[in-house]
Amino acid sequence: MRVFRWPVRVYWEDTDGGGIVYYANYLRFLERSRTEWLRSLGFSQQQMAWEPGVLFMVVNLSVDYRRPARLDDELFVTCEPRADGAVCMRFAQRIERGAERAPLVSAEVRVACVDARTLRPTKLPDPLRLVLNSPSEGAPAS
Amino acid sequence: MRVFRWPVRVYWEDTDGGGIVYYANYLRFLERSRTEWLRSLGFSQQQMAWEPGVLFMVVNLSVDYRRPARLDDELFVTCEPRADGAVCMRFAQRIERGAERAPLVSAEVRVACVDARTLRPTKLPDPLRLVLNSPSEGAPAS
Amino acid sequence: MRVFRWPVRVYWEDTDGGGIVYYANYLRFLERSRTEWLRSLGFSQQQMAWEPGVLFMVVNLSVDYRRPARLDDELFVTCEPRADGAVCMRFAQRIERGAERAPLVSAEVRVACVDARTLRPTKLPDPLRLVLNSPSEGAPAS
Amino acid sequence: MRVFRWPVRVYWEDTDGGGIVYYANYLRFLERSRTEWLRSLGFSQQQMAWEPGVLFMVVNLSVDYRRPARLDDELFVTCEPRADGAVCMRFAQRIERGAERAPLVSAEVRVACVDARTLRPTKLPDPLRLVLNSPSEGAPAS
Repeated sequence: MRVFRWPVRVYWEDTDGGGIVYYANYLRFLERSRTEWLRSLGFSQQQMAWEPGVLFMVVNLSVDYRRPARLDDELFVTCEPRADGAVCMRFAQRIERGAERAPLVSAEVRVACVDARTLRPTKLPDPLRLVLNSPSEGAPAS
Repeated sequence: MRVFRWPVRVYWEDTDGGGIVYYANYLRFLERSRTEWLRSLGFSQQQMAWEPGVLFMVVNLSVDYRRPARLDDELFVTCEPRADGAVCMRFAQRIERGAERAPLVSAEVRVACVDARTLRPTKLPDPLRLVLNSPSEGAPAS
Repeated sequence: MRVFRWPVRVYWEDTDGGGIVYYANYLRFLERSRTEWLRSLGFSQQQMAWEPGVLFMVVNLSVDYRRPARLDDELFVTCEPRADGAVCMRFAQRIERGAERAPLVSAEVRVACVDARTLRPTKLPDPLRLVLNSPSEGAPAS
Repeated sequence: MRVFRWPVRVYWEDTDGGGIVYYANYLRFLERSRTEWLRSLGFSQQQMAWEPGVLFMVVNLSVDYRRPARLDDELFVTCEPRADGAVCMRFAQRIERGAERAPLVSAEVRVACVDARTLRPTKLPDPLRLVLNSPSEGAPAS
């Protein structure tokens, strides 16, 4: 299974008075990686909001914070997606530091496809489901 | 002239690795005070976006940072509005700390009324202009 | 068991382009409630960082997002703490909307006490452990 | 004079309920560019905080917001520094969109060098002053 990786640099804006990244801000990093994974497949969320008119909403998540990230750290945020029914995607994600890939954070994030106007659950767009169900892109090997 | 004051507490989320409030986050505090001033007059921005269909966009601003705020500080954010033509409002604002009102930040913020869909400039709603032009609420004393 | 409740207003800063509160920002609201619970007991985190020299770090969390919050919403963020060993606290938390207490978000957050300089785990301060183990403040009824 | 440019992608976290980037978040983009300009010269702020023990604090700023940025936009943030006395730097900055360099935001930011512990003004480190006063890097042509 291919693991998508996206680099993130830690800036002052990300840190808090404890000198480390504020716990909510790792969720921003996780989303950048999910968004860039979508973009790497040719899906723009700006466009998807217009046609076919869908957004993605996080339904639930769990996060393990192992070691803190600090100012100037260069992180890599992984993203391993899989389909979860007709409406949802599940992402296993990790935040690692530097070339040595020191594990800082791991997360499991469930995202639902919703209608952009009503915010009600709706089916994942077909092209995206096709990708999620292809063996090379997130589907469990059979 | 009446000066509107709104309390703001400093949390971890507001601070950065320097142990003080991150410079962009004071702009959040400034906006909370402008929003609460509008609310104190009976204007909900959520409602205004629907009917009459307007939003407020900051056009320009200048900020002087004199002393930093820290975790747990209790701040007061003032807001002195005045009309600036048919489309804009100007806000003189200050951020003060504690009962002694120690001055931390002062700012001048110019806000334009825009159409919620096109984001093009549009006239301030009449009820708001009426307030801005009343002597007790922001108009220069004559 | 007493449930601590803290009000939070939704501002522009909290929303995203989907018109609802950005998923990471609920974590800010959760922390404000935990911080205010501590303050309600007389614990200032600014002071605790100096003497006895401890900070609190989130170790892990899980969040269920049921319904989104929107601009201008008035939320209440609950906080039900309990001790979890000598070093950790666990918080069951909910975010509710308005007087009708519509449930939006529920979360379980585990927080460790760490040395402010080394960030290594350390025992919860005695006065705090006393509170956590008192029947009226978070301990399971026997 | 060399103009430093740094790319910034707009994510959900940066937008607000108006569908555009929240006005305070442009200040984050401005700082990323200043930080990367420093890094491009070999200055790490994490290291500078330890040795020689200095931080940079914004003293004042002015921002003109001309056109809004939106989700998925690729921005470039420029940074033209110059010395301003022995303690301060001034940055002329612009935020532009896409290959066509559409001007969105322009800003003038004054930053002071301060002692990392006391936050009192202190002289800019010599190596940095040398750079600021070299003709190719920000000094006014004579």
